[in-house]
Amino acid sequence: MSELRRDPITGRWIIVYLDKVLQPSDFKPEPHIKNKDNCSFCSGNEGLTPPEIIAHRSYGAPNTPNWTVRVVPNKFPALRIEGELNREGIGVFDMMNGVGAHEVIIDTPDHFRDMGDLTCAETEEVVWAYLARSIDLRRDNRFKYILIFKNYGKSAGASLEHPHSQLIALPIVPKRVYEEIDGAAKYYEYKERCVFCDIIRGEQEEKSRIIYDGKYFLAFCPYVSRFAYEVWILPKKHQSDFTSLERDRVPDFACALRNSLAKIKGLLKDPSYNFIIHTSPINGHEREDYHWHVEIMPKLSKVAGFEWGSGFYINPVPPDIAAQNLLSVKTEEK
Amino acid sequence: MSELRRDPITGRWIIVYLDKVLQPSDFKPEPHIKNKDNCSFCSGNEGLTPPEIIAHRSYGAPNTPNWTVRVVPNKFPALRIEGELNREGIGVFDMMNGVGAHEVIIDTPDHFRDMGDLTCAETEEVVWAYLARSIDLRRDNRFKYILIFKNYGKSAGASLEHPHSQLIALPIVPKRVYEEIDGAAKYYEYKERCVFCDIIRGEQEEKSRIIYDGKYFLAFCPYVSRFAYEVWILPKKHQSDFTSLERDRVPDFACALRNSLAKIKGLLKDPSYNFIIHTSPINGHEREDYHWHVEIMPKLSKVAGFEWGSGFYINPVPPDIAAQNLLSVKTEEK
Repeated sequence: MSELRRDPITGRWIIVYLDKVLQPSDFKPEPHIKNKDNCSFCSGNEGLTPPEIIAHRSYGAPNTPNWTVRVVPNKFPALRIEGELNREGIGVFDMMNGVGAHEVIIDTPDHFRDMGDLTCAETEEVVWAYLARSIDLRRDNRFKYILIFKNYGKSAGASLEHPHSQLIALPIVPKRVYEEIDGAAKYYEYKERCVFCDIIRGEQEEKSRIIYDGKYFLAFCPYVSRFAYEVWILPKKHQSDFTSLERDRVPDFACALRNSLAKIKGLLKDPSYNFIIHTSPINGHEREDYHWHVEIMPKLSKVAGFEWGSGFYINPVPPDIAAQNLLSVKTEEK
Repeated sequence: MSELRRDPITGRWIIVYLDKVLQPSDFKPEPHIKNKDNCSFCSGNEGLTPPEIIAHRSYGAPNTPNWTVRVVPNKFPALRIEGELNREGIGVFDMMNGVGAHEVIIDTPDHFRDMGDLTCAETEEVVWAYLARSIDLRRDNRFKYILIFKNYGKSAGASLEHPHSQLIALPIVPKRVYEEIDGAAKYYEYKERCVFCDIIRGEQEEKSRIIYDGKYFLAFCPYVSRFAYEVWILPKKHQSDFTSLERDRVPDFACALRNSLAKIKGLLKDPSYNFIIHTSPINGHEREDYHWHVEIMPKLSKVAGFEWGSGFYINPVPPDIAAQNLLSVKTEEK
């Protein structure tokens, strides 16, 4: 038997299988074969990247070892920082120069420890780098949106294996962001409440889908999960912009992120995944109708024609079962 | 250098690389290792599928060999044909029973010949099966949309290797379909012209992106291609619904589809791909603002966090170069 479920934010439907549920052992993720030879992100190879933008190091000069987190421009950027935007019409289409920023946050000098293997304190340093770069790039008035994300593993589209995150500053607000913001605004218009706050309240009452319940942050497998073992992390208190995150709440956020990734890694044999920080467009005031959050999407199966054609997703693991399985994984720090 | 391009239908942007262009030989698709042992779609194994819904055979009883195309219910359907819809609210969410139809069109009895290897006449038979099943299912008033698609190869999400297509009849109009229809309707409202008809005219003037120019159908690599070697096929004359396709135009459509797939297969070492027939929702009258078409998406690279988070796509092959490369492939029938 299957059930159709509708997400009130984007209007997206999913099909969730309720019988024929896949077990964690049914997923066979591709193994990550790691080799640090000539890795340009490893400590000691700082000369192989463009000069760093920022780095956390206790001593030593820029572009030398002894850093914990390092931010560099992407060597093969999708967009370039130099130039004017120059939007123009080409027939029915619009065209713009590829202006933007594309940066790489090297999460750790250790080639073999992904974010789920880091300590909460180490993850916190990565989050500080996300915040610092976001705050800096917001000042460039050519940019309308800052997207921070992580691709881990080949199936998730990672081209380099050394643990890293990416930041892209865009000259337009992307379509998927508008969709989410418009959907949340419609809900707010009708109910005068933030849809994400309502979802948090629902998950707190339901309890069965929560995998991390911190002082400031909640992580859970959402009722309308598109993917098996999808996890969302939200600040419990309403906040629309990631860069508004209070300093004293960074450790709890880092821990929610690190522990969720550690649970996924432990339960599902280290699968590839993407995570994305969903936040407000730049220069938006603090919005009552939108709520920043992280979406973690393990890559356990392929997206096929049906999903591409419909925006409908078929999920073979009901999220309450996913959450119970994730909860069973111990994620002590090493 | 890169360029941002905006699709006037959905408002989607892509980033296309204009220097660093990938060559056909730069793509290394996973090889398809094919083994027909116990294949339930092969001729002779008709007893391994649920009883057929329709089949084309010159002689013999149902569920016996000697067929050319065969349609069966999906053995593990995402949705089931029995039952009532019963939509209800669960907190902020909506829930519905998993009612729908999920059918498999077995394109050919030959395990080893995908659609790009078939003749145009054989592909025509598959198209007739698409039409017959669409027309039949439209009469069930629980259904609002019929999605026909094909997954070829593991990277495209195919779970069975025998060449087949799929049809899913849905009790709701999916989000991606609404997006496209709403976008086209807005264009029509402003211009009083179909946006797809305008795109066709633009491609015919530009010429450089066309890969098939038949009496009734045009295939080209669209200016705003999300994926390397993406191909769209459209009827030249305005038509919003796939089931309105005139009998005498079926051969040209089949040939456009088969030849496009044969070119992709020939140029790019048989990559995995999805194609999807985009058509009007059921019970829509013939619409002036929408135009049915096929989108073929070769799976040459992975979709990563950036694409997931933004709905922005990065395309490493400008579509005019893709078209010129595809045109160079000979696609005579075998």
